[in-house]
Amino acid sequence: MSEAETTENIPDESAGNGKEIPNGGNPAKTKEDFDLASVYVSDAQYNRNIFFDTSPQAVRLYLLYNHWTPKVLLYFFILVDLSLAVFEEPAVLPLPTWATVLVELLCVLVFTLRLVHYAKVIPRDKFWRDAKNICIIVVLMLTLLDMIIYGALKAADCYALRWSRVLRPLLLVNVTEGRQLRRAFRSIRNALPQIFYVFLLFMFSVLIFSLMALKLLGKRGLKTNDGAPYFTNYLEIVFDLYVLVTTANSPDVMMPAYNSSSFFAIFFIVYILVNTYIFMSVFLAVVYNNYKKYLKEEVRQLVRAKRHKMVRAFAVLQERREEAGGQVVTQANWNQVVRLVRSDISNAHRELLWSVSDDKNQGFIGKVAFVQLADLLNIEVITLKSRPHPLHRLCPALYQSAPSRLLCRMVQHRAFVIVYDLIILVNAVFIGLDEENPMIANSEWVFLALYLLEILLKLYVFEPRAFFSRHSFWNWFDTIIVISALIATIVNSAMKSSGGYTSRQILDIVFILRVLRLIRVVDSIERFRTIINTLIRIGPAILTFGQLIVVVYYVFAMVGMELFKHKVTFYRDPGDPAKAFCGNPLLQGTAFAHLNYCKNNFNNVVSSFILLVELTVVNQWHVLSSGFATVTHMSARIFFVIFHVLVVIVIINIFVAFVLEAFFVEYSVDKSDLQTSLEKKIEELELAVEREKLQENLVDAMETVDNDLGTGQSQTANQPTLMFKIASKRYRTVDALLQRMFEADLDSEDFAEGSDPDAPTDGNFANPSFGSA
Amino acid sequence: MSEAETTENIPDESAGNGKEIPNGGNPAKTKEDFDLASVYVSDAQYNRNIFFDTSPQAVRLYLLYNHWTPKVLLYFFILVDLSLAVFEEPAVLPLPTWATVLVELLCVLVFTLRLVHYAKVIPRDKFWRDAKNICIIVVLMLTLLDMIIYGALKAADCYALRWSRVLRPLLLVNVTEGRQLRRAFRSIRNALPQIFYVFLLFMFSVLIFSLMALKLLGKRGLKTNDGAPYFTNYLEIVFDLYVLVTTANSPDVMMPAYNSSSFFAIFFIVYILVNTYIFMSVFLAVVYNNYKKYLKEEVRQLVRAKRHKMVRAFAVLQERREEAGGQVVTQANWNQVVRLVRSDISNAHRELLWSVSDDKNQGFIGKVAFVQLADLLNIEVITLKSRPHPLHRLCPALYQSAPSRLLCRMVQHRAFVIVYDLIILVNAVFIGLDEENPMIANSEWVFLALYLLEILLKLYVFEPRAFFSRHSFWNWFDTIIVISALIATIVNSAMKSSGGYTSRQILDIVFILRVLRLIRVVDSIERFRTIINTLIRIGPAILTFGQLIVVVYYVFAMVGMELFKHKVTFYRDPGDPAKAFCGNPLLQGTAFAHLNYCKNNFNNVVSSFILLVELTVVNQWHVLSSGFATVTHMSARIFFVIFHVLVVIVIINIFVAFVLEAFFVEYSVDKSDLQTSLEKKIEELELAVEREKLQENLVDAMETVDNDLGTGQSQTANQPTLMFKIASKRYRTVDALLQRMFEADLDSEDFAEGSDPDAPTDGNFANPSFGSA
Repeated sequence: MSEAETTENIPDESAGNGKEIPNGGNPAKTKEDFDLASVYVSDAQYNRNIFFDTSPQAVRLYLLYNHWTPKVLLYFFILVDLSLAVFEEPAVLPLPTWATVLVELLCVLVFTLRLVHYAKVIPRDKFWRDAKNICIIVVLMLTLLDMIIYGALKAADCYALRWSRVLRPLLLVNVTEGRQLRRAFRSIRNALPQIFYVFLLFMFSVLIFSLMALKLLGKRGLKTNDGAPYFTNYLEIVFDLYVLVTTANSPDVMMPAYNSSSFFAIFFIVYILVNTYIFMSVFLAVVYNNYKKYLKEEVRQLVRAKRHKMVRAFAVLQERREEAGGQVVTQANWNQVVRLVRSDISNAHRELLWSVSDDKNQGFIGKVAFVQLADLLNIEVITLKSRPHPLHRLCPALYQSAPSRLLCRMVQHRAFVIVYDLIILVNAVFIGLDEENPMIANSEWVFLALYLLEILLKLYVFEPRAFFSRHSFWNWFDTIIVISALIATIVNSAMKSSGGYTSRQILDIVFILRVLRLIRVVDSIERFRTIINTLIRIGPAILTFGQLIVVVYYVFAMVGMELFKHKVTFYRDPGDPAKAFCGNPLLQGTAFAHLNYCKNNFNNVVSSFILLVELTVVNQWHVLSSGFATVTHMSARIFFVIFHVLVVIVIINIFVAFVLEAFFVEYSVDKSDLQTSLEKKIEELELAVEREKLQENLVDAMETVDNDLGTGQSQTANQPTLMFKIASKRYRTVDALLQRMFEADLDSEDFAEGSDPDAPTDGNFANPSFGSA
Repeated sequence: MSEAETTENIPDESAGNGKEIPNGGNPAKTKEDFDLASVYVSDAQYNRNIFFDTSPQAVRLYLLYNHWTPKVLLYFFILVDLSLAVFEEPAVLPLPTWATVLVELLCVLVFTLRLVHYAKVIPRDKFWRDAKNICIIVVLMLTLLDMIIYGALKAADCYALRWSRVLRPLLLVNVTEGRQLRRAFRSIRNALPQIFYVFLLFMFSVLIFSLMALKLLGKRGLKTNDGAPYFTNYLEIVFDLYVLVTTANSPDVMMPAYNSSSFFAIFFIVYILVNTYIFMSVFLAVVYNNYKKYLKEEVRQLVRAKRHKMVRAFAVLQERREEAGGQVVTQANWNQVVRLVRSDISNAHRELLWSVSDDKNQGFIGKVAFVQLADLLNIEVITLKSRPHPLHRLCPALYQSAPSRLLCRMVQHRAFVIVYDLIILVNAVFIGLDEENPMIANSEWVFLALYLLEILLKLYVFEPRAFFSRHSFWNWFDTIIVISALIATIVNSAMKSSGGYTSRQILDIVFILRVLRLIRVVDSIERFRTIINTLIRIGPAILTFGQLIVVVYYVFAMVGMELFKHKVTFYRDPGDPAKAFCGNPLLQGTAFAHLNYCKNNFNNVVSSFILLVELTVVNQWHVLSSGFATVTHMSARIFFVIFHVLVVIVIINIFVAFVLEAFFVEYSVDKSDLQTSLEKKIEELELAVEREKLQENLVDAMETVDNDLGTGQSQTANQPTLMFKIASKRYRTVDALLQRMFEADLDSEDFAEGSDPDAPTDGNFANPSFGSA
């Protein structure tokens, strides 16, 4: 399922060497050279591992391939392809078959075009050696084949099955640049052998305990709470005890034995201790350990591949300089490439980066300094423009007047925050009270006014562009919530006063917005803020797991819908007699029907997904799986056991391992405030650069930056000043977070060029082995 | 609750210095000197931190204090004290009040005596400064006071309560040398502030979600499955959503809303994602991180304290030698002390240890080498006596004959193991079949005979003392199980044939033994063996958590019994009409009664413990807690929530953290086979020592040791030879495992004497700060 990354770019060595390393003078670099170099740098920056051809035409195609439009289009069509399940039989919103097939054909066409584009970019032999491409081609072929068979069978009025729908998530894994997703799959696959052995031992333990339970309890004539014979069938015991590992039937499975004698409780307690606590911890340990081990290896290879790409870029740009005693890259060429790679960064920012690389101010840099460029570009440098408040510019006399200054001081005071926290708490109480009461209903206007006032006051005091800067999460949050609440409340009361009619949907939105407003209180408590910031930072990684879960869920939903569709029906009408047994007489008297689980079914993709979430949460897992086994066959339980093993034992544990690891990294980063050597270098240098090239008063401005960013009161802010700040605790990409995670191990080996034995400087690098599937 | 360890022994400095560091000749060491030195060494070896007086009388008392008899006696009385709960009202086996009070008085007396003994050993001011002692005194006083009040109230026929029973587990924590237990409590206490902040944020999230649920769902007139109004009371919603975090009411709480509209499922899925998955992982991360941090600090202090004690022992034993250029300890004095500390080790073993310390063969050692002694004594050295098989000695001609040799070769062959594994599998099938069938019943004799034959064959081939050596876990396991099964089966069939009467108990034992026999198959699969060995090795640490759990359970059981005793009754007679509602009409129609949970009650200490286990497993937690809230008061739920937070969120997470950490250590030990420098040194040296002092053929014997230990066939084994082997992968104490865990951080700082800045060599060490409670 997880596919190989294509690994390392080996440019056409003969051409490259013939052109770039002449012994004599340095020929001027052509546009193609810059294009090629910028592609290498950009690949290194984003950790792309595409094996593109180095001919100018291929490079141009490759630039188009990496452009954001085809990527967005691709994601859109994958989304369309996946969401076809909503419209296909069994459908949420049924569409005629010809419509869905037509859309799917379009999707297949788009994917084929993307693949053809890719094939044009990389050498043919490399294309066919990559398991990822083979996988895509096979999936596309099978999809077409399936459509033809389905059409033919339908035409002949036979039973037809769209089995290729199971393969769709493979496209999400393989067609897109979902590197994290593929890596997560690879992690899982690599950890599987170890997990498998522990799982065997665990199953052995379950089987032994089941045998003991059969012998101890089977012949005692005990009855379960439903009056069924207790622990008489070995396979049933194995299932019951497997369920006990999930704790889903925790005291119930024990009660008949326990009621018969207290000594039997010992059996169950030992079982729970061994299988639930110890074995589940061992699973977590094994998954965590393997995950860490393989991820570390992969990230190490990523870092190595990145450096190799930078060395290639260097080989394209290099010139011989006698005073440097070797090959160098001049500032002019460097500027040209950086401008091509990142056209969005300012001249000053580029100057800063150059001065970090060229720390001796020579006008050229060697290979070691050049290789760092990819990391430099990844460090997020915030350009802060300290400018006066617009009101200050428009009407300085008023804005600088004593009352205005007093107001500013008040708003910036801690008491202002505390007062608003109290208002939020009072608001929370009012929300909890009955909104039918007119006093309570009207109080909402007061609170809205107070919140609006707060935002306006802050906008009066702080420079608006600083207030709404990209990193001011809470300011954005506040403003959006308050404005939306205002609009929704006005709409709601307008509708109410006009016709006495209240839209339930709008009211729901109003309620949600009101409650969300309360979250703001968290931001004013320092301890909470750190926890929340950590959670926000690991958010992108959680999204990768979201994709992983969607892939697994999709496959299980497709299979589940084929197996169980329309076996269980939910009746909305409470008077329907079939409601009591979910429309299936087989369910009469079962816990499934008794607990009214009829809506937990596989009748469409949405309810399948919700059911799979419930199965992931595990509780009542046995009721649900037994319910579906009742309406089909006992062996249907296998489907649910496989789901449990795969999702709960493997994927959720990887999720926990990831959260643990990310938290430990955050803790150690918080504590030691460790920064990479590069970041330290930037911080040392930025001051010097600024002092030379910009205004004198910048140092003062930088000192105030942490206190009141962009405040009109800043003494030095009579003219716009520019300064940089490293957003060092933010990670732009998941890769950066991963590299940070394993930084301690990577640093010495992979950044310092001399220390790596298998990295010759002539450009003949061994391919890093991003193992094929 | 967790108390301070007394920290560091400062002997009477003036006396010590006056005696031990004369500038001229070396006075002979007195018996008192050796006693004192051996006490220091033994304290260092076992990591005891008792602040004893150094007067000869106190040292003698201290030796008695550390003797095993008073310790065993103490544990016995603590056990008696704790198990009094079985006999006290509400009792499993009721005893008259005077009897239990009398026994408790005896226990109190024993604890007081132990405390007085301790007070005699350590200086008075240190005694009163130790919070642990204060805690014991307070507990004992309160116990006496409680007994008096209880007696008086009972005499006056008033309601009386033995509230001091809650305090009993404090004695287990504080009276005994339960260092691990105290350390676990300290870990928890240290982690609490951090856990508390996350918990606050988590509760804030639950409250916010509850408010949103109230607003979204409260006014829709939905009904739960029981027909009760759904999500209308805020406190009920908070409780329901708190239960959802435990997943105990997973799909049920969502079903009414989900049945009304699929969109509400989003609310619950977001809730589960945030509060169940993310927050619970964060709890684990915080607990794990803190646990690691504080434990590391404590172990570091332990190692430092150990070294300080060894330095003191050195100061007592040292002599000035001009050729060494400073203070040294001679071999004679060293021997004397080691003999006092460990009288059980052989002369050869002691020689080995000395030659490790005195690697230059000078006849004396300096301070650095002496300090290592404590660690050397902790390394478990197995003395292997390679002796011929007794049959070989008795009847060499027969034992060396061709058939005998063939038999030996057969038994040692891999096929022998495989054949017996197959026999076990067949046996498993036979056990699973109905034992009423006479064929099956008789087959049991065949299997028993086969297993006995296996043991006899192995005893024929392998030297019996090697076969039953201390570390041959599986041999012991096999033999005990097979012999017990044989005895039980004989007894069973004798009883059956004599009177046709079958004892259920004996049959149960027979069944259990039969099934346990199957476990043996695990040992013959290498991969399983490694996992099992790891689990066995972390066993002692799990026992510490067992104690921890017992302490917490005991407190909750005592409180629970006072709050809920006799509110719920279990009726054994199925015909009793009160059985349907557990003897309490309030329970009529509740899930508690419906699920027949009547035996889950607080009516005696045994059922309380079982109930607490069920609450720890969490499933149906809400049914149980609501049941007890129904028969008493809504606020009773607080008891269950506190239990959940303390046990499930804190203690179980620490357990998981410990298993994770232990597994990671095992993995890294397995991989790199890392050994401490000391162990390496021993391994290098042992060969040399042996070659000098023992027979020439030892090297051959050592080479065969891994293949067939103690086999009669060994070519060189014509006379008894002696050799050593380090049981390097086994940890004698939990402390050793902990030290191993944090070895990487400790090594450099704490073993090398010169590198530690705050360790002056004149004996004036700062007290390591084992912080008081």
